[in-house]
Amino acid sequence: MAVSGDEVKLLGTWASPYAIRVKIALGLKGVSYEYLEQQLRENKSELLLKSNPVYKKVPVLIHKDQPICESAIIVQYIDEVWAGVGPAILPSDPYERAIARFWAVYIDDKWFPATIKIIKVKDEKEKAEAIEQSFAGLSLLEEAYKKSFKGKPFFGGDNIGYLDIAFGSFLGWVRAIEKISDIKLIDEAKFPLLAKWAERFGSVTTVKENIPKTDKVVEYYSKVLKALWNA
Amino acid sequence: MAVSGDEVKLLGTWASPYAIRVKIALGLKGVSYEYLEQQLRENKSELLLKSNPVYKKVPVLIHKDQPICESAIIVQYIDEVWAGVGPAILPSDPYERAIARFWAVYIDDKWFPATIKIIKVKDEKEKAEAIEQSFAGLSLLEEAYKKSFKGKPFFGGDNIGYLDIAFGSFLGWVRAIEKISDIKLIDEAKFPLLAKWAERFGSVTTVKENIPKTDKVVEYYSKVLKALWNA
Repeated sequence: MAVSGDEVKLLGTWASPYAIRVKIALGLKGVSYEYLEQQLRENKSELLLKSNPVYKKVPVLIHKDQPICESAIIVQYIDEVWAGVGPAILPSDPYERAIARFWAVYIDDKWFPATIKIIKVKDEKEKAEAIEQSFAGLSLLEEAYKKSFKGKPFFGGDNIGYLDIAFGSFLGWVRAIEKISDIKLIDEAKFPLLAKWAERFGSVTTVKENIPKTDKVVEYYSKVLKALWNA
Repeated sequence: MAVSGDEVKLLGTWASPYAIRVKIALGLKGVSYEYLEQQLRENKSELLLKSNPVYKKVPVLIHKDQPICESAIIVQYIDEVWAGVGPAILPSDPYERAIARFWAVYIDDKWFPATIKIIKVKDEKEKAEAIEQSFAGLSLLEEAYKKSFKGKPFFGGDNIGYLDIAFGSFLGWVRAIEKISDIKLIDEAKFPLLAKWAERFGSVTTVKENIPKTDKVVEYYSKVLKALWNA
Protein backbone atom coordinates (compact mmCIF):
# COMPACT_ATOMS: atom_id res chain seq x y z
CA MET A 1 0.00 0.00 0.00
CA ALA A 2 1.39 3.36 -0.97
CA VAL A 3 0.38 6.26 1.22
CA SER A 4 0.55 9.85 0.14
CA GLY A 5 3.14 11.38 2.38
CA ASP A 6 1.67 14.89 2.43
CA GLU A 7 5.04 16.12 1.25
CA VAL A 8 7.42 13.97 3.23
CA LYS A 9 11.13 14.62 2.83
CA LEU A 10 13.95 12.74 4.48
CA LEU A 11 17.41 14.21 4.93
CA GLY A 12 19.88 11.38 5.43
CA THR A 13 23.16 9.80 4.45
CA TRP A 14 23.22 6.27 3.04
CA ALA A 15 25.57 4.92 5.72
CA SER A 16 23.85 6.48 8.75
CA PRO A 17 22.15 3.79 10.87
CA TYR A 18 19.96 6.55 12.27
CA ALA A 19 18.73 7.57 8.82
CA ILE A 20 18.25 3.88 7.98
CA ARG A 21 15.82 3.62 10.91
CA VAL A 22 13.64 6.29 9.39
CA LYS A 23 13.77 4.66 5.95
CA ILE A 24 12.74 1.30 7.43
CA ALA A 25 9.88 2.88 9.38
CA LEU A 26 8.59 4.80 6.35
CA GLY A 27 8.91 1.60 4.30
CA LEU A 28 6.92 -0.39 6.88
CA LYS A 29 4.13 2.16 6.77
CA GLY A 30 4.29 2.40 2.98
CA VAL A 31 4.76 6.17 3.11
CA SER A 32 6.25 7.63 -0.06
CA TYR A 33 8.85 10.33 0.43
CA GLU A 34 11.52 12.35 -1.25
CA TYR A 35 14.97 11.31 -0.10
CA LEU A 36 17.69 13.96 -0.01
CA GLU A 37 21.19 12.52 0.44
CA GLN A 38 23.29 14.90 2.56
CA GLN A 39 26.98 15.72 2.66
CA LEU A 40 28.73 15.02 5.93
CA ARG A 41 30.90 17.47 7.83
CA GLU A 42 31.68 19.89 5.04
CA ASN A 43 29.20 21.41 2.66
CA LYS A 44 26.15 20.82 4.82
CA SER A 45 23.05 21.90 2.97
CA GLU A 46 21.14 25.03 3.89
CA LEU A 47 18.08 22.83 4.34
CA LEU A 48 19.86 20.63 6.91
CA LEU A 49 21.25 23.62 8.83
CA LYS A 50 17.85 25.28 8.87
CA SER A 51 15.96 22.09 9.76
CA ASN A 52 18.21 20.90 12.57
CA PRO A 53 19.96 24.03 13.88
CA VAL A 54 20.71 22.45 17.27
CA TYR A 55 22.66 19.39 16.09
CA LYS A 56 23.04 19.98 12.32
CA LYS A 57 22.80 16.22 11.88
CA VAL A 58 20.86 13.67 9.88
CA PRO A 59 18.28 12.26 9.92
CA VAL A 60 15.67 14.98 9.66
CA LEU A 61 12.15 14.17 8.55
CA ILE A 62 10.30 17.11 7.06
CA HIS A 63 6.55 16.56 7.08
CA LYS A 64 4.24 19.31 5.89
CA ASP A 65 7.21 21.69 6.14
CA GLN A 66 7.79 20.86 9.82
CA PRO A 67 11.19 19.33 10.63
CA ILE A 68 11.48 16.47 13.14
CA CYS A 69 14.94 15.47 14.37
CA GLU A 70 16.49 12.51 16.24
CA SER A 71 15.87 9.03 14.84
CA ALA A 72 14.09 7.55 17.88
CA ILE A 73 11.75 10.54 17.97
CA ILE A 74 11.14 10.41 14.22
CA VAL A 75 10.27 6.69 14.31
CA GLN A 76 7.74 7.31 17.09
CA TYR A 77 6.36 10.28 15.14
CA ILE A 78 5.89 8.11 12.05
CA ASP A 79 4.10 5.47 14.13
CA GLU A 80 1.79 8.12 15.60
CA VAL A 81 1.03 10.11 12.44
CA TRP A 82 0.38 7.03 10.30
CA ALA A 83 -1.18 5.10 13.17
CA GLY A 84 -3.86 3.46 11.07
CA VAL A 85 -1.50 2.63 8.22
CA GLY A 86 0.54 -0.59 8.03
CA PRO A 87 1.71 -2.44 11.13
CA ALA A 88 2.12 -0.63 14.46
CA ILE A 89 5.78 0.05 15.22
CA LEU A 90 5.56 0.41 18.99
CA PRO A 91 3.83 -2.31 21.02
CA SER A 92 0.34 -1.37 22.23
CA ASP A 93 0.95 -2.54 25.80
CA PRO A 94 2.54 0.22 27.96
CA TYR A 95 4.92 -2.19 29.70
CA GLU A 96 6.10 -3.69 26.42
CA ARG A 97 6.54 -0.16 25.05
CA ALA A 98 8.67 0.71 28.08
CA ILE A 99 10.82 -2.41 27.60
CA ALA A 100 11.30 -1.70 23.88
CA ARG A 101 12.24 1.93 24.65
CA PHE A 102 14.61 0.84 27.41
CA TRP A 103 16.64 -1.46 25.17
CA ALA A 104 16.58 1.02 22.30
CA VAL A 105 18.16 3.65 24.58
CA TYR A 106 20.65 1.08 25.87
CA ILE A 107 21.69 0.21 22.31
CA ASP A 108 22.20 3.87 21.41
CA ASP A 109 23.90 4.97 24.63
CA LYS A 110 26.00 1.94 25.49
CA TRP A 111 26.14 -0.89 22.98
CA PHE A 112 26.77 0.79 19.65
CA PRO A 113 29.29 3.34 20.99
CA ALA A 114 31.30 0.38 22.38
CA THR A 115 30.91 -1.60 19.16
CA ILE A 116 32.07 1.15 16.80
CA LYS A 117 35.05 1.73 19.08
CA ILE A 118 36.35 -1.69 18.05
CA ILE A 119 37.44 -0.20 14.74
CA LYS A 120 37.77 3.40 15.88
CA VAL A 121 40.42 3.17 18.61
CA LYS A 122 44.05 2.35 18.00
CA ASP A 123 45.16 1.49 21.51
CA GLU A 124 45.03 -2.30 21.96
CA LYS A 125 43.82 -2.11 25.55
CA GLU A 126 40.98 0.25 24.61
CA LYS A 127 40.09 -2.04 21.73
CA ALA A 128 39.97 -5.09 24.02
CA GLU A 129 37.70 -3.18 26.40
CA ALA A 130 35.41 -2.17 23.53
CA ILE A 131 35.15 -5.80 22.37
CA GLU A 132 34.32 -6.91 25.90
CA GLN A 133 31.66 -4.21 26.27
CA SER A 134 30.13 -5.02 22.91
CA PHE A 135 29.88 -8.72 23.82
CA ALA A 136 28.46 -7.85 27.25
CA GLY A 137 25.77 -5.80 25.50
CA LEU A 138 24.95 -8.64 23.14
CA SER A 139 24.64 -10.99 26.13
CA LEU A 140 22.13 -8.62 27.72
CA LEU A 141 20.17 -8.40 24.47
CA GLU A 142 20.24 -12.18 23.98
CA GLU A 143 18.95 -12.52 27.55
CA ALA A 144 16.27 -9.88 26.99
CA TYR A 145 15.13 -11.68 23.85
CA LYS A 146 14.94 -14.96 25.76
CA LYS A 147 13.04 -13.39 28.64
CA SER A 148 10.61 -11.05 26.93
CA PHE A 149 10.36 -12.00 23.28
CA LYS A 150 11.06 -15.75 23.12
CA GLY A 151 9.04 -17.74 20.66
CA LYS A 152 8.34 -14.66 18.58
CA PRO A 153 10.21 -14.04 15.33
CA PHE A 154 10.93 -10.42 16.21
CA PHE A 155 11.32 -8.23 19.28
CA GLY A 156 8.12 -6.62 18.03
CA GLY A 157 6.26 -9.94 17.83
CA ASP A 158 5.09 -11.23 14.46
CA ASN A 159 6.31 -8.08 12.69
CA ILE A 160 9.39 -5.98 13.19
CA GLY A 161 8.81 -3.13 15.60
CA TYR A 162 10.53 -0.30 17.45
CA LEU A 163 13.31 -2.34 19.06
CA ASP A 164 13.95 -4.39 15.92
CA ILE A 165 14.43 -1.15 14.00
CA ALA A 166 16.60 0.44 16.72
CA PHE A 167 18.91 -2.58 16.90
CA GLY A 168 18.67 -3.81 13.32
CA SER A 169 19.56 -0.43 11.81
CA PHE A 170 23.11 -1.15 12.95
CA LEU A 171 23.40 -4.53 11.19
CA GLY A 172 25.13 -3.15 8.10
CA TRP A 173 27.75 -1.62 10.37
CA VAL A 174 27.99 -4.74 12.55
CA ARG A 175 28.76 -6.87 9.50
CA ALA A 176 31.35 -4.32 8.37
CA ILE A 177 32.96 -4.13 11.82
CA GLU A 178 33.08 -7.95 11.90
CA LYS A 179 34.86 -7.96 8.55
CA ILE A 180 37.29 -5.14 9.38
CA SER A 181 38.20 -6.47 12.82
CA ASP A 182 37.91 -10.17 11.94
CA ILE A 183 35.79 -10.70 15.06
CA LYS A 184 32.41 -12.37 14.82
CA LEU A 185 30.11 -10.28 17.00
CA ILE A 186 26.62 -11.74 16.50
CA ASP A 187 28.05 -15.24 16.71
CA GLU A 188 25.54 -18.07 16.33
CA ALA A 189 27.28 -20.20 18.96
CA LYS A 190 27.31 -17.39 21.53
CA PHE A 191 24.06 -15.63 20.68
CA PRO A 192 21.82 -18.16 18.91
CA LEU A 193 18.62 -16.15 19.32
CA LEU A 194 20.15 -12.87 18.12
CA ALA A 195 21.86 -14.60 15.18
CA LYS A 196 18.57 -16.08 13.99
CA TRP A 197 16.79 -12.80 14.64
CA ALA A 198 19.38 -10.92 12.56
CA GLU A 199 18.84 -13.32 9.68
CA ARG A 200 15.05 -12.91 9.83
CA PHE A 201 15.34 -9.14 10.21
CA GLY A 202 17.65 -8.92 7.20
CA SER A 203 15.14 -10.72 5.01
CA VAL A 204 12.31 -8.21 5.57
CA THR A 205 11.72 -6.22 2.38
CA THR A 206 12.02 -2.69 3.79
CA VAL A 207 15.19 -3.76 5.59
CA LYS A 208 16.78 -5.37 2.52
CA GLU A 209 16.10 -2.20 0.57
CA ASN A 210 17.74 0.06 3.12
CA ILE A 211 20.58 -1.70 4.95
CA PRO A 212 23.77 -1.05 2.99
CA LYS A 213 25.90 -3.89 1.67
CA THR A 214 28.76 -4.90 3.96
CA ASP A 215 31.44 -4.34 1.31
CA LYS A 216 30.16 -0.84 0.59
CA VAL A 217 30.41 0.05 4.29
CA VAL A 218 33.88 -1.49 4.54
CA GLU A 219 35.01 0.53 1.54
CA TYR A 220 33.49 3.72 2.98
CA TYR A 221 35.32 3.05 6.23
CA SER A 222 38.65 2.45 4.45
CA LYS A 223 38.44 5.35 2.04
CA VAL A 224 36.63 8.04 4.03
CA LEU A 225 36.12 7.42 7.74
CA LYS A 226 39.57 6.13 8.63
CA ALA A 227 41.12 9.33 7.33
CA LEU A 228 38.54 11.49 9.13
CA TRP A 229 38.98 9.63 12.43
CA ASN A 230 42.73 9.91 12.18
CA ALA A 231 42.68 13.56 11.17
CA MET B 1 -8.46 12.24 43.04
CA ALA B 2 -6.55 9.33 44.51
CA VAL B 3 -6.04 6.36 42.27
CA SER B 4 -5.22 2.90 43.51
CA GLY B 5 -1.76 2.24 42.20
CA ASP B 6 -2.14 -1.55 41.87
CA GLU B 7 0.92 -1.83 44.06
CA VAL B 8 3.10 0.97 42.77
CA LYS B 9 6.54 1.35 44.29
CA LEU B 10 9.11 4.00 43.48
CA LEU B 11 12.80 3.56 44.15
CA GLY B 12 14.43 6.98 44.27
CA THR B 13 16.70 9.35 46.12
CA TRP B 14 15.37 12.69 47.33
CA ALA B 15 17.95 14.74 45.42
CA SER B 16 17.71 12.90 42.08
CA PRO B 17 16.06 15.13 39.44
CA TYR B 18 15.23 11.93 37.56
CA ALA B 19 13.35 10.46 40.53
CA ILE B 20 11.64 13.84 41.04
CA ARG B 21 10.23 13.55 37.50
CA VAL B 22 8.51 10.33 38.41
CA LYS B 23 7.16 11.78 41.66
CA ILE B 24 5.74 14.79 39.80
CA ALA B 25 4.15 12.55 37.15
CA LEU B 26 2.58 10.23 39.74
CA GLY B 27 1.38 13.30 41.65
CA LEU B 28 -0.21 14.78 38.52
CA LYS B 29 -2.09 11.57 37.90
CA GLY B 30 -3.02 11.22 41.57
CA VAL B 31 -1.51 7.73 41.77
CA SER B 32 -0.71 6.60 45.29
CA TYR B 33 2.58 4.74 45.71
CA GLU B 34 5.07 3.46 48.19
CA TYR B 35 8.28 5.46 48.08
CA LEU B 36 11.51 3.68 48.92
CA GLU B 37 14.45 6.03 49.45
CA GLN B 38 17.65 4.40 48.18
CA GLN B 39 21.27 4.62 49.23
CA LEU B 40 23.68 5.94 46.62
CA ARG B 41 26.91 4.23 45.56
CA GLU B 42 27.44 2.00 48.58
CA ASN B 43 24.85 -0.23 50.15
CA LYS B 44 22.55 -0.40 47.14
CA SER B 45 19.47 -2.37 48.02
CA GLU B 46 18.87 -5.87 46.70
CA LEU B 47 15.61 -4.58 45.27
CA LEU B 48 17.39 -1.87 43.25
CA LEU B 49 20.06 -4.27 41.97
CA LYS B 50 17.41 -6.79 40.98
CA SER B 51 15.08 -4.21 39.44
CA ASN B 52 17.66 -2.34 37.38
CA PRO B 53 20.50 -4.81 36.79
CA VAL B 54 21.76 -2.93 33.72
CA TYR B 55 22.36 0.49 35.29
CA LYS B 56 21.74 -0.14 39.02
CA LYS B 57 20.36 3.41 39.20
CA VAL B 58 17.29 5.23 40.41
CA PRO B 59 14.54 5.88 39.55
CA VAL B 60 12.84 2.54 39.14
CA LEU B 61 9.07 2.31 39.11
CA ILE B 62 7.73 -1.09 40.11
CA HIS B 63 4.17 -1.59 38.96
CA LYS B 64 2.45 -4.92 39.52
CA ASP B 65 5.89 -6.40 40.27
CA GLN B 66 7.29 -5.26 36.91
CA PRO B 67 10.23 -2.83 37.07
CA ILE B 68 10.47 0.08 34.64
CA CYS B 69 13.72 2.06 34.43
CA GLU B 70 14.89 5.41 33.02
CA SER B 71 12.94 8.52 34.00
CA ALA B 72 11.82 9.59 30.51
CA ILE B 73 10.53 6.09 29.84
CA ILE B 74 8.82 5.89 33.23
CA VAL B 75 7.03 9.22 32.73
CA GLN B 76 5.72 8.06 29.35
CA TYR B 77 4.69 4.74 30.93
CA ILE B 78 2.74 6.56 33.64
CA ASP B 79 1.00 8.68 31.01
CA GLU B 80 0.06 5.57 29.03
CA VAL B 81 -1.04 3.31 31.91
CA TRP B 82 -3.10 6.00 33.62
CA ALA B 83 -4.22 7.54 30.34
CA GLY B 84 -7.74 8.28 31.48
CA VAL B 85 -6.68 9.63 34.85
CA GLY B 86 -5.75 13.26 35.51
CA PRO B 87 -4.26 15.50 32.82
CA ALA B 88 -2.39 14.02 29.84
CA ILE B 89 1.37 14.42 30.24
CA LEU B 90 2.39 14.17 26.59
CA PRO B 91 0.67 16.39 24.03
CA SER B 92 -1.89 14.58 21.88
CA ASP B 93 -0.58 16.01 18.61
CA PRO B 94 2.27 13.90 17.13
CA TYR B 95 4.32 16.94 16.09
CA GLU B 96 3.98 18.57 19.51
CA ARG B 97 4.96 15.24 21.10
CA ALA B 98 8.05 15.12 18.89
CA ILE B 99 9.01 18.69 19.85
CA ALA B 100 8.53 17.97 23.56
CA ARG B 101 10.61 14.77 23.27
CA PHE B 102 13.32 16.61 21.32
CA TRP B 103 13.86 19.27 23.95
CA ALA B 104 13.63 16.74 26.77
CA VAL B 105 16.48 14.75 25.18
CA TYR B 106 18.44 17.96 24.59
CA ILE B 107 18.08 18.94 28.25
CA ASP B 108 19.28 15.51 29.42
CA ASP B 109 22.09 15.06 26.92
CA LYS B 110 23.45 18.58 26.59
CA TRP B 111 22.05 21.24 28.87
CA PHE B 112 22.07 19.65 32.32
CA PRO B 113 25.49 17.95 31.90
CA ALA B 114 26.93 21.41 31.06
CA THR B 115 25.05 23.07 33.93
CA ILE B 116 26.16 20.64 36.65
CA LYS B 117 29.74 20.99 35.39
CA ILE B 118 29.68 24.61 36.62
CA ILE B 119 30.08 23.33 40.17
CA LYS B 120 31.73 20.01 39.34
CA VAL B 121 34.89 21.07 37.53
CA LYS B 122 37.79 22.85 39.16
CA ASP B 123 39.61 24.12 36.10
CA GLU B 124 38.59 27.74 35.47
CA LYS B 125 38.62 27.37 31.69
CA GLU B 126 36.40 24.29 31.84
CA LYS B 127 34.10 26.13 34.22
CA ALA B 128 33.84 29.11 31.87
CA GLU B 129 32.99 26.75 28.99
CA ALA B 130 30.33 25.04 31.09
CA ILE B 131 28.75 28.39 31.96
CA GLU B 132 28.75 29.39 28.29
CA GLN B 133 27.15 26.07 27.25
CA SER B 134 24.53 26.29 29.97
CA PHE B 135 23.56 29.82 28.87
CA ALA B 136 23.53 28.74 25.20
CA GLY B 137 21.11 25.95 26.16
CA LEU B 138 18.88 28.36 28.04
CA SER B 139 18.85 30.66 25.00
CA LEU B 140 17.68 27.76 22.84
CA LEU B 141 14.97 26.87 25.35
CA GLU B 142 13.85 30.51 25.67
CA GLU B 143 13.66 30.63 21.87
CA ALA B 144 11.76 27.33 21.72
CA TYR B 145 9.29 28.61 24.30
CA LYS B 146 8.78 31.79 22.29
CA LYS B 147 8.34 29.88 19.04
CA SER B 148 6.25 26.89 20.06
CA PHE B 149 4.68 27.57 23.41
CA LYS B 150 4.24 31.36 23.63
CA GLY B 151 1.10 32.60 25.26
CA LYS B 152 0.68 29.36 27.18
CA PRO B 153 1.57 29.16 30.85
CA PHE B 154 3.50 25.91 30.39
CA PHE B 155 5.38 24.04 27.67
CA GLY B 156 2.52 21.55 27.99
CA GLY B 157 -0.14 24.24 27.47
CA ASP B 158 -2.58 25.00 30.28
CA ASN B 159 -1.15 22.25 32.46
CA ILE B 160 2.41 21.08 33.01
CA GLY B 161 3.38 18.29 30.65
CA TYR B 162 6.29 16.15 29.52
CA LEU B 163 8.75 18.93 28.73
CA ASP B 164 7.82 20.94 31.82
CA ILE B 165 8.59 17.88 33.93
CA ALA B 166 11.82 17.06 32.06
CA PHE B 167 13.15 20.62 32.46
CA GLY B 168 11.52 21.56 35.74
CA SER B 169 12.81 18.49 37.59
CA PHE B 170 16.20 20.21 37.53
CA LEU B 171 15.01 23.46 39.14
CA GLY B 172 16.04 22.46 42.67
CA TRP B 173 19.53 21.84 41.37
CA VAL B 174 19.54 24.98 39.23
CA ARG B 175 18.76 27.11 42.28
CA ALA B 176 21.49 25.32 44.22
CA ILE B 177 24.04 25.74 41.42
CA GLU B 178 23.13 29.43 41.23
CA LYS B 179 23.76 29.79 44.96
CA ILE B 180 26.99 27.79 45.02
CA SER B 181 28.49 29.48 41.95
CA ASP B 182 26.94 32.90 42.53
CA ILE B 183 25.79 32.97 38.90
CA LYS B 184 22.17 33.64 38.04
CA LEU B 185 21.29 31.08 35.37
CA ILE B 186 17.57 31.51 34.75
CA ASP B 187 17.98 35.27 34.82
CA GLU B 188 14.80 37.27 34.32
CA ALA B 189 16.58 39.89 32.23
CA LYS B 190 18.16 37.33 29.91
CA PHE B 191 15.41 34.73 29.82
CA PRO B 192 12.14 36.45 30.74
CA LEU B 193 9.89 33.66 29.47
CA LEU B 194 11.83 30.88 31.23
CA ALA B 195 12.03 32.88 34.45
CA LYS B 196 8.27 33.35 34.54
CA TRP B 197 7.72 29.74 33.52
CA ALA B 198 10.00 28.54 36.35
CA GLU B 199 7.97 30.60 38.83
CA ARG B 200 4.68 29.17 37.59
CA PHE B 201 6.08 25.63 37.47
CA GLY B 202 7.36 25.90 41.04
CA SER B 203 3.94 26.88 42.30
CA VAL B 204 2.20 23.71 41.04
CA THR B 205 1.24 21.51 44.00
CA THR B 206 2.91 18.25 42.89
CA VAL B 207 6.06 20.23 42.07
CA LYS B 208 6.15 22.08 45.41
CA GLU B 209 5.81 18.77 47.21
CA ASN B 210 8.69 17.16 45.36
CA ILE B 211 11.35 19.71 44.39
CA PRO B 212 13.86 19.89 47.24
CA LYS B 213 14.64 23.15 49.02
CA THR B 214 17.67 24.98 47.64
CA ASP B 215 19.45 25.07 51.00
CA LYS B 216 19.03 21.33 51.45
CA VAL B 217 20.62 20.69 48.05
CA VAL B 218 23.44 23.15 48.77
CA GLU B 219 24.12 21.39 52.07
CA TYR B 220 24.03 17.98 50.37
CA TYR B 221 26.52 19.26 47.79
CA SER B 222 28.85 20.68 50.45
CA LYS B 223 28.73 17.73 52.82
CA VAL B 224 28.42 14.74 50.49
CA LEU B 225 28.90 15.35 46.79
CA LYS B 226 31.95 17.58 46.92
CA ALA B 227 33.87 14.87 48.76
CA LEU B 228 32.66 12.15 46.37
CA TRP B 229 33.52 14.20 43.28
CA ASN B 230 36.96 14.97 44.66
CA ALA B 231 37.62 11.39 45.76
